[in-house]
Amino acid sequence: MAQDSAITPRDQDYSAWYLDVIQHGDLLDDAPVRGCKVLKPHGYGIWELIQADLDRRFRDTGHRNAYFPLFIPVSFLSREAEHVEGFAKECAIVTHHRLRSVTDDNGKVSVEPDPESALEEQLVVRPTSETVIWHMYGRWIDSWRDLPILINQWANVVRWEMRTRPFLRTAEFLWQEGHTAHATRDEAIDEARLMLQVYRDFAHEILAVPVVTGVKSARERFAGAVETFTIEALMQNGWALQSGTSHFLGQNFAKAFDVTFQNKNGERELVWATSWGVSTRLIGAVIMTHSDDDGLVLPPRVAPIQVVIIPVGKAKDLEAVRQAVDALRAELRQAGIRVHVDDRDNLRPGAKYFEWERKGVPLRLELGPRDLAKGQAFAKTRINREKFGLPLQGAAMEVQRVLDKIQDELLARAIAMRDARTYDIDSVETFRARLEEGGFLRVAWGGDDADEGRIAEETKATIRCFPLDEPAPQGLACPLTGKPAWTWALFARAY
Amino acid sequence: MAQDSAITPRDQDYSAWYLDVIQHGDLLDDAPVRGCKVLKPHGYGIWELIQADLDRRFRDTGHRNAYFPLFIPVSFLSREAEHVEGFAKECAIVTHHRLRSVTDDNGKVSVEPDPESALEEQLVVRPTSETVIWHMYGRWIDSWRDLPILINQWANVVRWEMRTRPFLRTAEFLWQEGHTAHATRDEAIDEARLMLQVYRDFAHEILAVPVVTGVKSARERFAGAVETFTIEALMQNGWALQSGTSHFLGQNFAKAFDVTFQNKNGERELVWATSWGVSTRLIGAVIMTHSDDDGLVLPPRVAPIQVVIIPVGKAKDLEAVRQAVDALRAELRQAGIRVHVDDRDNLRPGAKYFEWERKGVPLRLELGPRDLAKGQAFAKTRINREKFGLPLQGAAMEVQRVLDKIQDELLARAIAMRDARTYDIDSVETFRARLEEGGFLRVAWGGDDADEGRIAEETKATIRCFPLDEPAPQGLACPLTGKPAWTWALFARAY
Repeated sequence: MAQDSAITPRDQDYSAWYLDVIQHGDLLDDAPVRGCKVLKPHGYGIWELIQADLDRRFRDTGHRNAYFPLFIPVSFLSREAEHVEGFAKECAIVTHHRLRSVTDDNGKVSVEPDPESALEEQLVVRPTSETVIWHMYGRWIDSWRDLPILINQWANVVRWEMRTRPFLRTAEFLWQEGHTAHATRDEAIDEARLMLQVYRDFAHEILAVPVVTGVKSARERFAGAVETFTIEALMQNGWALQSGTSHFLGQNFAKAFDVTFQNKNGERELVWATSWGVSTRLIGAVIMTHSDDDGLVLPPRVAPIQVVIIPVGKAKDLEAVRQAVDALRAELRQAGIRVHVDDRDNLRPGAKYFEWERKGVPLRLELGPRDLAKGQAFAKTRINREKFGLPLQGAAMEVQRVLDKIQDELLARAIAMRDARTYDIDSVETFRARLEEGGFLRVAWGGDDADEGRIAEETKATIRCFPLDEPAPQGLACPLTGKPAWTWALFARAY
Repeated sequence: MAQDSAITPRDQDYSAWYLDVIQHGDLLDDAPVRGCKVLKPHGYGIWELIQADLDRRFRDTGHRNAYFPLFIPVSFLSREAEHVEGFAKECAIVTHHRLRSVTDDNGKVSVEPDPESALEEQLVVRPTSETVIWHMYGRWIDSWRDLPILINQWANVVRWEMRTRPFLRTAEFLWQEGHTAHATRDEAIDEARLMLQVYRDFAHEILAVPVVTGVKSARERFAGAVETFTIEALMQNGWALQSGTSHFLGQNFAKAFDVTFQNKNGERELVWATSWGVSTRLIGAVIMTHSDDDGLVLPPRVAPIQVVIIPVGKAKDLEAVRQAVDALRAELRQAGIRVHVDDRDNLRPGAKYFEWERKGVPLRLELGPRDLAKGQAFAKTRINREKFGLPLQGAAMEVQRVLDKIQDELLARAIAMRDARTYDIDSVETFRARLEEGGFLRVAWGGDDADEGRIAEETKATIRCFPLDEPAPQGLACPLTGKPAWTWALFARAY
């Protein structure tokens, strides 16, 4: 369908810009159910590339995929006290298993749940799967020989959020959730940290989204976790986006579901757990890290179409062009490059350029009789609008080089942006001033839960994380509370 | 966990055998929700291989993946009269979006749906997605330029079946559903037949499950379809298994959701539709086509582990063996072969052999000092129990050759079984006798819906399909009804 309206510039209204980029990029549409979205092929294609790469990384670290049920008995949710607290308020509940037809006074027929089909035990559509998975682990784990269990699941989950935003927060979303079971505390903590590192490397290498790795404060911890590790990215507007979390769950779920194992000494012990997940929210991170006022910008490694070839020129010359286009497509495809030829004859080249720019395709190649005569295609990059002749001889290698260069530049650009907007805070005044502009605010933190809550209420800034592997501040006073600082903390406004 | 009990022989109790094979093969476990199952890694791994291959075939025929919402407003279901008839009686209905805690007289706390969170419009968990997808297509289709739409979705669906059987019929299951929109009737019919052919080729080439392609009788048609095409396989017990369907939906869903397009002459027309799907049921087809009284047999192309290497021999020799095992694993992996090394030191080789046989691994390689001295591994195939020395020099190529041979033999064996049990029927007596033994019963059919229903009631046999591309019988009387035959029909007992 035609999308002729303009994209709102970022500095005018960042939220409107975000929605415009998604619409013009043809990524997603509203579903007929509140808070649910349809992932259109171009948007789902990004997710498929995310899946393929992460899945390989999960396998390389010894994990296997499985599938657990969508439905969880409501009683399961209440087994872990904090967990139910965290999820009971926003979940979809299945209560009946049959519809019946009813006719109203005007003879109009509609359907409604058949009261006779009410379920004995009502079911929650999974908001996350710790409970049902630990129920199953209780059946599967008996001895130290059964450990560790290293399982991942790709699935849809539902959280009945009232305020939704495409990719960032929707009632249903797609994600992966890893759930592991271990014989020792140390092994579980190592696993949680390993998967955090996997997420960090993936974000940098594939999404070109630089992230800070850290630990969540108690206030921001996952419901049921002992420790939550996180990767936090900084969007162009200076807001942070929590992009993935990895939880050390201690023995909380083992206790709740009575999961013990016999150790090598013949004694029974509770099992140690982790869980970790990333979701389609990562697509939001990609959009808000790289895109510009002309629409979507996709890093080549997550671009469903990396190169679009557009034949140009007068009709009489087209046969030779078509042959050259076919040969070029075949060569690029052979080299594993995701290429699309736009040979629609009902659109002018200008309209095509416009469309593919808005869809974020990293590299455009135009091929007409004049280019062909020079033995090259006319190339234009989505970022920087670089134009150059791309030799048809050895095109695949050159295209791959250009794509790699774009990927590198996007990461470098994003790191520079992030670093330029990471501020050391020495007073409440600079905290407030910097917060206004947006960015990561680095604070020698001395506060507690209550201080954090008060700051969040007053400023809308939250502690995104305590960055990992930084020595604690020595002898500093916290600029926000006046108390002795015990850790470094990154504050930011966050999605 | 230990699974020491024996597998029930097929000729004793085929249903018990099927459940035993699944349990000993470690494919699946019961979930805590009625009719739902957990796909364990070894079972889910088969599905992942099915997905990867089919997905490639879908792309090669021009389709792209997308994702539509899990929830469908109940009112949508009733838009297409036959469709609601087909699905309303067995669906999961979401009525609330919040749980609340309640304390009973004994002070026990539990959770229940909060009455204040009742939904204005109740939601059905998708049993199939025609309705919500055609609602979206109505937003996306305006002109002939928007057609065709060729979309596939990988998803979970829920049908509240009362009688469930692992893989074959469960309340929740995984599947793919293609949904296409076309400008003309012919194009839609061609699409439905093309996807049937894709399924047929996939079943033969990858699952080694030979299928008959055909058309469903009106009685067995998908709820809302004009014509349902099907692939039907014959299990070892002589029962048929519907393994995939492809529907020509005519303009039924376009009418129900008011989806029209402007043709090249500027007139508005209703859009033509197809949908097509296969599910985790295919895993059931694989099990019941190939497995034997010793457990699971997997065709190499859908075996999550194609080759297991087991180091054997005395401790003092193990370092050299370990190096040889590592080198062999690396070589096989490099060649794209799915290999697993079982180097657990708490199990004897015999126990390992037993376990991997039951898990259906096509080829076992044992490697000990004596084998190493001969420059070979000791090989044993899961089918036929063939034993031979496999030279370590050029092992990958030889292993691939063996795997291909096994794959071919499994298909040939299954075709021979199917053909031997496909019977031409000339009388009611032979029909009943053959049905007792099981098989495809080929009938020159002259009946109608009522005749078919009567036969199903009397004999439990149904028309699996009218085979495609067979000329209609000429001048024959139907042996079951005495009426003039108008088509060939395959009858069978079916899952």
